[in-house]
Amino acid sequence: MSSNLHLTILGCYAAAPSSFKNPTSQVLDIRNHLFLIDCGEGTQVALRRNKIKFSRIKHIFISHLHGDHFFGLMGVITTFSLLKRTAPLTIYGPKGLKEIILLQLKITQGFTSYPLRFVEITSKEPTVIYEDNEVTVTTIPLKHRIYTNGFYFQEKPGERKLDINACLNYEIDKAYYSKIKQGGDITLDDGTLIPNDKLTFDPSKPKSYAYCSDTAYKEAVATQIKGATVLYHEATFLESHAHLCKSTGHSTAAQAAQIATKAEVGSLVLGHYSIRYGDLNLFIEEARPHFENVLLGDDGKEFTF
Amino acid sequence: MSSNLHLTILGCYAAAPSSFKNPTSQVLDIRNHLFLIDCGEGTQVALRRNKIKFSRIKHIFISHLHGDHFFGLMGVITTFSLLKRTAPLTIYGPKGLKEIILLQLKITQGFTSYPLRFVEITSKEPTVIYEDNEVTVTTIPLKHRIYTNGFYFQEKPGERKLDINACLNYEIDKAYYSKIKQGGDITLDDGTLIPNDKLTFDPSKPKSYAYCSDTAYKEAVATQIKGATVLYHEATFLESHAHLCKSTGHSTAAQAAQIATKAEVGSLVLGHYSIRYGDLNLFIEEARPHFENVLLGDDGKEFTF
Repeated sequence: MSSNLHLTILGCYAAAPSSFKNPTSQVLDIRNHLFLIDCGEGTQVALRRNKIKFSRIKHIFISHLHGDHFFGLMGVITTFSLLKRTAPLTIYGPKGLKEIILLQLKITQGFTSYPLRFVEITSKEPTVIYEDNEVTVTTIPLKHRIYTNGFYFQEKPGERKLDINACLNYEIDKAYYSKIKQGGDITLDDGTLIPNDKLTFDPSKPKSYAYCSDTAYKEAVATQIKGATVLYHEATFLESHAHLCKSTGHSTAAQAAQIATKAEVGSLVLGHYSIRYGDLNLFIEEARPHFENVLLGDDGKEFTF
Repeated sequence: MSSNLHLTILGCYAAAPSSFKNPTSQVLDIRNHLFLIDCGEGTQVALRRNKIKFSRIKHIFISHLHGDHFFGLMGVITTFSLLKRTAPLTIYGPKGLKEIILLQLKITQGFTSYPLRFVEITSKEPTVIYEDNEVTVTTIPLKHRIYTNGFYFQEKPGERKLDINACLNYEIDKAYYSKIKQGGDITLDDGTLIPNDKLTFDPSKPKSYAYCSDTAYKEAVATQIKGATVLYHEATFLESHAHLCKSTGHSTAAQAAQIATKAEVGSLVLGHYSIRYGDLNLFIEEARPHFENVLLGDDGKEFTF
């Protein structure tokens, strides 16, 4: 099974929203799962403007408890109820988020029309927090002012691809196709063994998406996500403000690109820009000497990998 | 002292925000106070788009704890800190709001750069919650699904207006002008008493603004705000959905207009429309048979009274 990753950036600016710049939120479509990643104020409106179907979102991942990454969450949770959703919603985020949400539901005499589940993240090591037959999601411990995790979304290897002509030549019954795609050999009626590699092609290489925001430069990230298809890495500052990275727990565009190079990823998407800058192209200019295939994230932009 | 009320509607739609319709928030400029009333998600962005100076807002009034009236509050509080505000901010709202805000500040390891004060409202009777030399603010108990108050903003009577020609004729020293404006009589050097009404004109009639959202039809509101300059009254539904008013605790446009008539207000501004309706002019059409001077609130609209 081959598939594409599809990324929609709902917002990718740091700190307070301004008139036309949204705080962080994005949607990753991977193997037909629609994962919402971070949820700054205004996310529900950005979802509507980007025509993303609310009902397809079943999992929300919150990196850390700074307002620009989760102040839109209560609005999303409440609106899903107003829409009479019944499908469960699971929220993955740092300990404390559940308490914030449940207190508001209690005091506002609100309730959800659907099962609301929480997975509280507390580990400082990479931890698998979601897994099914198609995809795993692992935390990426980051280096920020407060406890923060990125998320590594990885496709599992797909089934082998059937060589339909070979199967027809050997007159193999269709009933065996499923077994063959899972790697099985076949014994013909005359006793001949046909090994699987004569009947199939290799599956597509599984794709992966690493989301890293917010973080200072941290080399362990590169080790963990080695060979990822795409890295989204925060680039809050240009070199002119590099001295602010340490105290704020953020990165420059050049540092994001250095992580991309060390991790040997396919593509780098930049985001989480400080709103002090007018010309986003400067981020590309400062990143490209370190990593060639760099893309500029921006509100409303979509990428397919 | 004569002054105008200036009202800016930041948002006036019910329930969940949609792509281009904001939940409730508005700014009242009265005697040079800038009061923020309700604070739905996206309020800080709406404030910026309407070019309202954050630093002029010192008091925020929250009617009730439904998300479309307060989910933008944490964003406003946090952004004021990012801007390094030092002036105190006071928030008036139902009991429970303080707990919600303080829990989020605690868990997010956030703090405010300025003193943050809360006035928790619990009374079911009209209660003065703010008063200074110029203005009083009194709660208007409303009838909604949860505990809800409107707010009645009233100018205090101004000083009497000096009849400067009369004062010059009597050769009264300027040192006495302040006393005269406060209503004092004057005794001339020859012992003649000049009563105040020979030296002054009546001050302008104090203006007032009654904010009533969200509420079902409630006649006691009309009694309390009798003669108000302006009434903002919710009109969630048209007659075609009047049957929903009781269960939801909302009003129709006609009911809003009936309250305006009974209260003998100067003007009625409608708002809090259900987003199911396309043509807002229908709200005016259904209100006008009951009250002539009705105005259509809408996001970004400004009114001067």
